[in-house]
Formats: sequence, structure tokens, C-alpha cells
Amino acid sequence: MPSLSHQVMANPRVSSIDGKLAEEFAVPCHVDEVKEKMAAFASLHAAAGRRVVLITSGGTKVPLESRTVRFLDNFSSGRRGASSAEYFMDSGYAVIFLHRHRSLYPYTRVFSTINMLDALMFRGEEEASSGEVVVNQQVLPNIAKALKRYQEVKEGNLLLPIEFSTLSEYLHLLKAAAQALSAIGPMAMFYLAAAVSDFYIPASEMPEHKIQSSNGPLQLSLNMVPKILSPLVKDWAPQAFVISFKLETDASILLDKARRALDTYRHQAVVANVLDSRRGYVVVVTPETQAELIISEEDAKNEVEIEERIVSNLTSAHDKFITQQGG
Amino acid sequence: MPSLSHQVMANPRVSSIDGKLAEEFAVPCHVDEVKEKMAAFASLHAAAGRRVVLITSGGTKVPLESRTVRFLDNFSSGRRGASSAEYFMDSGYAVIFLHRHRSLYPYTRVFSTINMLDALMFRGEEEASSGEVVVNQQVLPNIAKALKRYQEVKEGNLLLPIEFSTLSEYLHLLKAAAQALSAIGPMAMFYLAAAVSDFYIPASEMPEHKIQSSNGPLQLSLNMVPKILSPLVKDWAPQAFVISFKLETDASILLDKARRALDTYRHQAVVANVLDSRRGYVVVVTPETQAELIISEEDAKNEVEIEERIVSNLTSAHDKFITQQGG
Repeated sequence: MPSLSHQVMANPRVSSIDGKLAEEFAVPCHVDEVKEKMAAFASLHAAAGRRVVLITSGGTKVPLESRTVRFLDNFSSGRRGASSAEYFMDSGYAVIFLHRHRSLYPYTRVFSTINMLDALMFRGEEEASSGEVVVNQQVLPNIAKALKRYQEVKEGNLLLPIEFSTLSEYLHLLKAAAQALSAIGPMAMFYLAAAVSDFYIPASEMPEHKIQSSNGPLQLSLNMVPKILSPLVKDWAPQAFVISFKLETDASILLDKARRALDTYRHQAVVANVLDSRRGYVVVVTPETQAELIISEEDAKNEVEIEERIVSNLTSAHDKFITQQGG
Repeated sequence: MPSLSHQVMANPRVSSIDGKLAEEFAVPCHVDEVKEKMAAFASLHAAAGRRVVLITSGGTKVPLESRTVRFLDNFSSGRRGASSAEYFMDSGYAVIFLHRHRSLYPYTRVFSTINMLDALMFRGEEEASSGEVVVNQQVLPNIAKALKRYQEVKEGNLLLPIEFSTLSEYLHLLKAAAQALSAIGPMAMFYLAAAVSDFYIPASEMPEHKIQSSNGPLQLSLNMVPKILSPLVKDWAPQAFVISFKLETDASILLDKARRALDTYRHQAVVANVLDSRRGYVVVVTPETQAELIISEEDAKNEVEIEERIVSNLTSAHDKFITQQGG
């Protein structure tokens, strides 16, 4: 790759991630098309003075076979990403929603936990033959509000959904997004809420066919996924406002890990949370500050969500960041 | 467990599976309650002369940590199970639908591939304020038919849905189902379409907390899941009509593996299919026969589904089976 030789000289560590991405993670065939779409979306909104946030959401699928039957996955319903997207749009942002196929989608939380068929009924009793199907708003009291907002957002072209399933797709699409958004400088925020695998099996070591159980117990040897936050912050979108997420099950190591991530990658903030309490408590950690965001019982009763607090905290910080950059 | 001692003497291999189930796979706390529900459902329908099929559907989750962030999974949308459930109910069966949480549910296929919000609209144009939300049947032309059938099925109490997420839940609930259905003898069919993991990490070898990527590459050592088909056929529901599924990516080994499964477990049939062609071609293998079921281009155009053919083949075979048993 002669066109990369200068970069290779300048920053061998980062370029080796680029090389690894190209070699060991299959490039999705539509990546260039998606990149153009994202760039057009970003410049359109930036020209109108609107900030753009790239939200990643959901878990990544790590295939164990190239014709995939088995895979590794990460716990994530996509609830935090979907909910945050709504609050960002309420705050005037345009949203690129890079999400796992079939993970939660903005404005669908109101019916995500029920079978939609239980919320539908024929108009007029005993009138199945009339054929008109309506939503039973006793089952789904918030559907009209959600639908209205969804339609406004669509009309205003405020939401650009992009799907991934595998880790490879996620990595390449995130890189494309970062390069696409670099054009709008500090107006771009990255809100990296997806639950990304730390481990993978390189294509070269992957069996083609389904692993046979008749061969006995399974030994898996997984490589470490390159830390893509590093080239994202340094090379791909160096002027952007970048937020990563840290989820642990052990609260005692959480803040230390968050601080170490900030030291290593030099981005703007880490949203730190513990699996069991993630809907009621997070800490937003920046190089200088540490803000605890809490949902009290009272808040929960009033259906206040922690994502509203997280987004409010980060949009304020993004304000200051843009001012400091002289943007 | 003194109450098991007789069984241990009589059949050590099978009982060792029972023991393994109890020791290495966490028992879901609601298993007894679910078992009673299934037994009541089965005897109610059998008393009315109705056959009962237990359908398993979707993939199983295999946790890598006890506070689970990462897990192994098997490819499966649950489409085959959900679709088959509909055809079984059309054929007069009552259905226990043991399915992975959030996998496809009967009668929801019509809207499973779209965002439901794109199929909803306010009644009357520009009348968001009126607040009545209706389904746009230009987007979802089959919704009225599906809803009508869903409501009939609910009214007739023909469908008992039971959810699992993890492999442990699946194994214990399947055992409970088999024991619950044994009371109705040959009137019960087991249609084991779920994509069940062949490998797992025993609770005793599982770390409590999220595996740290800072410890370097990951070596996983997975045990083999006990072959639950063996005690199911021999001990738990010995009179039932049992169908297992075999999915491979390599067509050349498929039929041989299906025949070997029949030899080993002595059940009634294997539905054999290859990942890439599974919606257009399956082979139903029995000890004496081998039936190829095919969806032609013409069939596909007419929206004929292969599950209709599979269910038709198996309900006929179940007829004969019941007659032979003198049932």
C-alpha cells in the first residue's frame, strides 16, 4: 500500500491498526457508499448550524466459523443507545445511529417489551371483517407521542440509521464514520455506547464449516481486538468530541479503568457504569472532573431516565469544548 | 439424592446426564411452576382429543462469566420454529412454544423485518392531535389476517409460550416439558428446532466478573453439553413422537450425521438441512425413509413456506405412529 507509506513512517502504531483492520477483518462491501451518506448527512446539518452525534449501540457478533453457526456476543439490548439518540435529537442534534441489527431503535421502547399483536385490535368490536386495525392505547399509552416524534424526526431528516452485525462491520463502519465526520471538526460528537468485543478469531484461523461436536471439547484461542479508539482520536477525527463507555461488573475497578482509558487515548470523557446498576447510576469522568449521575426512586416513579442526564451533561460539555476550540 | 438411587442402578449413563444437569447447569427458579402449567395444558388438550407439540425455537446463550457480559450464541432467528407453530395450530395441534427470549414469535413474521413505527399512522391526515393510531395496511398487507388468527389461537388457548435465554434454562425447561408431556403418551410430539450449543463452560470454571482484556489474548476451554435427546427418548417421554433437527454448513456430511443420530437416539425422525438452503430444501430422515421437501421458485412466488411441507409430512407420520401404538 504505497499511498500509506508516509503515514506508516509518521505513526507506525496507529497505522498498524489500519493494516490489521484491512487484513484481519472483512471489509463490508457497502462501506464506501455508507461513508458518503454519512459525510453528506454531517455536512448538511453542520451547514445549518446543527451538531452531529455518532452513536454506536448494541453488541458485536464475533463469528467462530466463516460459514457462521456459532458466535461470541456481548450483552446489550441497545437500550442506552436508542434512548440517548432520542434525547440528543430533543437537544437539537442530528444523529447517526450505528447500531446492531435488531437492537433497540429510537422511539420503539414503548412497545419493545410486549408482543405488538397484544396491542393491536380491530376497529369496532366483533368487526374483524371490517379489517381496520388500530393500536389499543390502553395497552400502549405512549404510542401516539412516540409516533409523532418519530415522524417529526424522519421529516426533519435528523436520524441516519446504519446497521452492523459482526465486529468486522462495526470496526470498518466506525472508521468510515470517523473519517466522514472529521470534515465538521468539533461540531461532531462520538458517543461510543456499543458493547464491543475485546476478542476475536482472525479470518485466517477460522474454520470454514460448523465446528463438529464429535471432535470433543472445544479449545478456543482468541486474539485481542485492536483498540480503535486510538486512531479515531489521533488520526481519523482529531478535532471531534469523543466519549467512550466503560462497563464493568466489579465496581471496585471501574473508576481506575475509566481514568486509565482517558490517559491512554486522550479523548474527552468516559461514561463509567456497573452492569447491575447501569440504569440508575453512572459516573461521567473527564480529565478534570467526575460527575455522578443518579436516578432516585422519585425520578424512576416519574419515568425520568438516566440517559436524559447523561445527554444533558455531555451536550453542555460539548458546548464548552466548541467554544474552547474557537469553533 | 436417595430418591434417584434406583434409577442410577438401572441406567447409569442416562442418570449421569441427570446428575450433570443438576450439578453444572443452574436450575431456573420457576421450573416447577412451568412444568405444572405445561402438564395442565397437555392434559386439557389431550382430553379434548387434541395432540400437543412441544416446539423448541431459537438459539441458546452460553455465558462466559457468571455476571454475564460475554456469551456464546448460536445463529437462529427462530423463524422456523415460529412458522412451524402456526402450521401445527392450523393442523389442529396445541403448541407449547419453548423459545429464546425475543426470538421470532408466531404470527409476528408479517412485521418482523420492518420498524413497526413505519407501519403506523394517525387516523385521518394531519390529525396527530386526534391521537388515534392505525396500522397502514399498504405497508403491512397481511396484518389483519395474522391478527385474526392470533386472536383465535389465544381465545382457544392453543398456544402456551415459555421463554428461555441461557443453555441452562433451555435444558431444564426441556426436561420439565418432557416429563410433563409423558402423561399424554404418543399424543405428544417433540419438534426440537432450537439451535442448541454443543459446548459450555461449567459454573465451577466460570469467572465471576467480566473477563479483562488487559490480561491479554483469551483461551477458552469448553466442555461438551450432555446429549439430552438420550434421556428424553429413553426415560422422560418414552412414548412420544420425537423429531430432532440437524443443521450443517457442509452438505456432504449431513445425511450421514442424520442417520447416525437416529441410530444413536432411536427417535422417530431427523429434519436435516444446510445453512444456506434451509428455506428451500430439507430432508426428513426416518429409520426407513428419506423424504426430500423442496420449495420451487413457483412455490416461493406463491409464498409457500417449507415449514408447511415439514409440518404436513410430520403430522401424517404422527398419525401412523399413534395408530401403530394402538393409541
